[in-house]
Amino acid sequence: MSTGGGRSVDPCLDEDRLHRLGIAHLTEPGDPRVAGLVDDLGAAVVHEGLLRGLDLQGVELDAAARVGATEPARALERAHRAGLRFVVPGDTEWPAQLDDLGSAAPVSRHGGRPLGVWVRGPLGLHEIARSVAVVGARAATTYGTDVAARLAAGVAESGRTVVSGAAFGIDQAAHRGALAADGRTVAVLACGADRVYPQAHARLIEHLADEHCLVSETVPGGAPTRMRFLSRNRLIAALTQGTVVVEAALRSGALNTANWAGRLHRHLMGVPGPVTSAHSAGVHQLLREGGALVVTHADEVLEVVAPAGEQLTVRARGEDRARDRLTHRQQQVLEAVPLRRAADDFSIAGTAGVAPLEVRGTLLKLEEAGFVRREGTGWRLADHDPQLPGQPFLDWTG
Amino acid sequence: MSTGGGRSVDPCLDEDRLHRLGIAHLTEPGDPRVAGLVDDLGAAVVHEGLLRGLDLQGVELDAAARVGATEPARALERAHRAGLRFVVPGDTEWPAQLDDLGSAAPVSRHGGRPLGVWVRGPLGLHEIARSVAVVGARAATTYGTDVAARLAAGVAESGRTVVSGAAFGIDQAAHRGALAADGRTVAVLACGADRVYPQAHARLIEHLADEHCLVSETVPGGAPTRMRFLSRNRLIAALTQGTVVVEAALRSGALNTANWAGRLHRHLMGVPGPVTSAHSAGVHQLLREGGALVVTHADEVLEVVAPAGEQLTVRARGEDRARDRLTHRQQQVLEAVPLRRAADDFSIAGTAGVAPLEVRGTLLKLEEAGFVRREGTGWRLADHDPQLPGQPFLDWTG
Repeated sequence: MSTGGGRSVDPCLDEDRLHRLGIAHLTEPGDPRVAGLVDDLGAAVVHEGLLRGLDLQGVELDAAARVGATEPARALERAHRAGLRFVVPGDTEWPAQLDDLGSAAPVSRHGGRPLGVWVRGPLGLHEIARSVAVVGARAATTYGTDVAARLAAGVAESGRTVVSGAAFGIDQAAHRGALAADGRTVAVLACGADRVYPQAHARLIEHLADEHCLVSETVPGGAPTRMRFLSRNRLIAALTQGTVVVEAALRSGALNTANWAGRLHRHLMGVPGPVTSAHSAGVHQLLREGGALVVTHADEVLEVVAPAGEQLTVRARGEDRARDRLTHRQQQVLEAVPLRRAADDFSIAGTAGVAPLEVRGTLLKLEEAGFVRREGTGWRLADHDPQLPGQPFLDWTG
Repeated sequence: MSTGGGRSVDPCLDEDRLHRLGIAHLTEPGDPRVAGLVDDLGAAVVHEGLLRGLDLQGVELDAAARVGATEPARALERAHRAGLRFVVPGDTEWPAQLDDLGSAAPVSRHGGRPLGVWVRGPLGLHEIARSVAVVGARAATTYGTDVAARLAAGVAESGRTVVSGAAFGIDQAAHRGALAADGRTVAVLACGADRVYPQAHARLIEHLADEHCLVSETVPGGAPTRMRFLSRNRLIAALTQGTVVVEAALRSGALNTANWAGRLHRHLMGVPGPVTSAHSAGVHQLLREGGALVVTHADEVLEVVAPAGEQLTVRARGEDRARDRLTHRQQQVLEAVPLRRAADDFSIAGTAGVAPLEVRGTLLKLEEAGFVRREGTGWRLADHDPQLPGQPFLDWTG
C-alpha cells in the first residue's frame, strides 16, 4: 500500500490511514458518532462495518463516494497526485492539539477528533502548534479588515502562524496581513483541499497551497456545505492556541468558531469596535457573555497566547508629561501651588507638608521648568502646561 | 443657631454641622487625614484644635477662609442665601452611600468621607440612591458624545439619576441625554456649588441648579483646583451604583473616577470604541485590566446596577430568520438537504436520521415555505434564503 504522502513508515499506521480515508468517504466530516466509534473500535472495524451496511442511526453512506470507500488506496494515490497528503493521528505531522476534540462534548451534530485531515502545501501541520486564529465576519467593514490585517501581521511577525478560513472579509484580511508580514498562514477549508471556495479567492488560496498550507477534513472534491462550515470552524479553534474575533454580527459563523475555542479551553479574544456598528455587536456579546478578552493590538494577543513570561506587553500609558519627570518632592510642592491666587512659601510649605527652606529651592526649579510663576511675593501655577503648549493647566480635569 | 438649610431639628447635629463647615473652610476637600480625625474625635474637637493651631502635618489653614472657620453660622447663613444647603452625615438628605468612603483606603492625598456637601437645587440628595455615573473624556469624539447621550437617556428613562461632572465632552452629553429624556441628573463640581465651571456650561449648570441638583465638597466660592477635581471624582463614584466610562484617553481623569468606583466596589462599566481611536484607549485598558464590564446599551447598564431580577436584558440575538421558526424536525430535515446535487427522500431520511415517510411530508412543507426545491426525483436547497431575498443560502458561512 502506498502511504500517499503520509510520513509514517509503520505499516499498521498505513492500514489505519486507509481505513480512516475509507470512512471519511462514507460519512460527513465532524460527525461525532463516527469519531467516537473509530476511537472506541478502531478504524478497520468501523470501515468494514460501514461497508457491510452497519446502521449508524442515519450516518449517510454517500453512493458517489463509493470508490474512495472501497478502494481507499486508489483514492489516496489520486489525492497524492493532486498534491494532497492525508494526515492521521500517529503521523509525525499530526497536530496533537486536534486530539482535544476527542474529549470535548459534541454540539448538535458536530464534534469529535477528525479521522484525518487532507493537507496541501509545503508548511507542515506539526509546525503550527504556535498559532492564532483570526476570524470574523464576511461582511466586514474597512475598520474590521484594517484591524484584522494589522493584528495578523503582528502575530505573524512574532513567528506564530495565522490560521483562518479564506472567506471574504476578516478571513481574507487575516491571511493577507500575515503574508504582508512575510509570516506563515494556514487556511482551513470547508470544501476539499483541492477545491477553491470562494472562487473570488482563487489566487489567495492557490498561493497558500504553493507557499503555506491548506487544511480540510472534507474529502477531495467535496463541496462546502453548511454542516461542513460548522465542522470546519471547530478545526480552526482546535488547531490554534487562541482565537481572535474581529467584527462579527450577532449569530455569525465567527461566533461558532469562538464558542468552539471556549469549549476547547483555548484563549478567546475579541476586538471591540463602535457600539453603533452591527458588525461589532457579536464581538461585544462575546466580550460581555462569552468570556472573551478585549484585545486591541497584536502585542496583547501575543501576551495572552504566549507562555507566562515569554511575551510581556509594554503597558500603554499615554504620552509622558513633563509632570511625570518631576521628582516626588517637586510634584508634592507643585500640587500645593494654587491655580490663580498666589500663595507664599510658607503657605505652600504648609500645604505640601515640606519644610519652607526646601520649598523655596524647589519652587525656583519649578519656575525654571515653566510650571509656576511669581506673583508679588507669592507663587501661582503657570498659565500653560510647559509640556502642552496652549493647553491650560486645567487639562488634567478631563 | 440657624440650620441654614439642613433638614435636621436635632440641635446636636446642628452644632456638628457648624463645626464641620468650619473645618471645611480650613482644609482641602477630601483630605483623608482630616476626615479620619473627624470620624475619630468628632468635628468639635478637630475644629477647635485647628483654630488653636493644631498641627495636622501640613493641613493648610487658609487665612482667607477664616471667616467661615471662626464664624461658621454666618458662613452657613450666607450659603443659605445663595441657595446652598450644607448636608452632613445624620441629615435625612445625607446620601448613605458616601459613608463607604470612610472605609476605603485613601489614594495619595484623596479619600475619606466628606465632612459635608454643599447642595444646590430642588432634587434631594437622598433621592439619588438609584443612580449611575456617566463620565468620560473632555476631548470626546462625536461617537463618544452620541453614545453617552443615548446611554444617559436610557438610564434616566428607567427612573435612575444620571450623575456626572458638568465638564466638556462626555459629561455634558450625559447631562443633556438625561435632560432630553426628561430624567434626573446631578452634577458634582470641583468648585463651590455657587460657582460655574467651565464658564461655557453656565446655562447647563444653572439649569441643573434650578431643576435638578449641584453637589460640591468645596466651600462656596472655592475655585476648581487639580486636587479638588481628584477629590470630586471620588464623590461621583461613591454617590452612584455604578460608573460608565464612555471614551477616555490613557491617563484621563475619567479613569481616576473609574478607579474609585472599583475601590468602592461599585459597578464599573466601559463602552468600547474603535481600537484605532486614542479616545477609547483608556476604556479598553479598563476593560482589559480594570475589571470593567463591556456595556453597549443602556439596558445593559441597568441590568448591571439593578437588583437581581429587577431588570432583565432581552439578549440581543440578531434578526430572526425564517429558519428559526421551523420546528426542530423541520430543521433536522432541512440540514440534510444538499446544497447543489439533489438527493432523494431516502438519502435525506438517512442523513437526517428521520423515517422516510415523515421526511416526505416535511419536505413538502419546506418546499411550500421556499426552503427547498425539487430537481428530478430529488430535492435540493432553494437558491435563495426565503427570509433574505437575494442572499444565497451560503450566507451562513460567515
